[in-house]
Amino acid sequence: MPTIVIDGPVMKSVEQKRRMVEKLTDAAAEVYGYDKKIITVVIRENSPENVGSGGRLIADIHAESS
Amino acid sequence: MPTIVIDGPVMKSVEQKRRMVEKLTDAAAEVYGYDKKIITVVIRENSPENVGSGGRLIADIHAESS
Amino acid sequence: MPTIVIDGPVMKSVEQKRRMVEKLTDAAAEVYGYDKKIITVVIRENSPENVGSGGRLIADIHAESS
Amino acid sequence: MPTIVIDGPVMKSVEQKRRMVEKLTDAAAEVYGYDKKIITVVIRENSPENVGSGGRLIADIHAESS
Amino acid sequence: MPTIVIDGPVMKSVEQKRRMVEKLTDAAAEVYGYDKKIITVVIRENSPENVGSGGRLIADIHAESS
Amino acid sequence: MPTIVIDGPVMKSVEQKRRMVEKLTDAAAEVYGYDKKIITVVIRENSPENVGSGGRLIADIHAESS
Repeated sequence: MPTIVIDGPVMKSVEQKRRMVEKLTDAAAEVYGYDKKIITVVIRENSPENVGSGGRLIADIHAESS
Repeated sequence: MPTIVIDGPVMKSVEQKRRMVEKLTDAAAEVYGYDKKIITVVIRENSPENVGSGGRLIADIHAESS
Repeated sequence: MPTIVIDGPVMKSVEQKRRMVEKLTDAAAEVYGYDKKIITVVIRENSPENVGSGGRLIADIHAESS
Repeated sequence: MPTIVIDGPVMKSVEQKRRMVEKLTDAAAEVYGYDKKIITVVIRENSPENVGSGGRLIADIHAESS
Repeated sequence: MPTIVIDGPVMKSVEQKRRMVEKLTDAAAEVYGYDKKIITVVIRENSPENVGSGGRLIADIHAESS
Repeated sequence: MPTIVIDGPVMKSVEQKRRMVEKLTDAAAEVYGYDKKIITVVIRENSPENVGSGGRLIADIHAESS
């Protein structure tokens, strides 16, 4: 029943999401010593306008550095 | 002030969401013994490409079983 | 795989938690039209010193009204 | 590494999000006594059809009061 | 109904929590243009053994730098 | 700034937590193509009385199967 929620950027492809789910599940199953069948992963994709770091929007940090 | 967050699939209709909010709120209010006025529900709808079970995307599990 | 997380006060007994899990699961299973086997519930118990409503700690609201 | 997640309505503009990230970060940094560089904020925007208060959808409460 | 959840370290005092709730609520109410009465804050206190940054436990980072 | 939150059982040792943080961080960093420095992991440990699966407390499922 463990649940992993990962909050990050918008992802590039279904293949990238597939790998994320596979690798996070394998990591958790191994460390807990659980069958991976009972592990759920939820990927949250966030726009750079909806995340801030150090008090600034990621969208603004990206705009400045480009 | 209790808050219920439910992470599940994309829902079929506003009517289904209305019933989800009503039933989860009633359940929590009854068990806590609280007025339902102070209970908040947030429904998160997740694409089958963003959820994994047992290390595989729900999108892939669905594709295989159809 | 739906997951329900409920954030509320410290609960009174295991029996109260048992009823919370049962009722929230039944509600979600019925509205989604899913088997309840795939539904997970996580109860988070929060001290009144760790929750605020309207800008004030629940602990302070309780102290004032008692 | 503190992380602030705020669940609220759909926001009006990037400028409003910019101010939210700035003000929440400043508040947390000051109270913790931390450099704001290590604070992350995630803004979740929720449709009024996906949030309930007192057992009713925000969408329905709005419809009735307008 | 907006809800703010802040995940950070164990806090030093009730007074520090009181200020956190007050300041985060004021910030969100002002930016949303809402009455602060409808805003909830939940403070999650995490042990340095339960948080990692850059792949290392905060507990280990602290041990090394002291 | 990606943040991984894992909700599972009470863990056995600090060493187990250390490995969980290390492995989840490595997995996410590799799949996103990010430096692991910007990834945060939060481990939430839940009592078997506070988690339900299929409408039943984990504590009850364990008691029955032992």
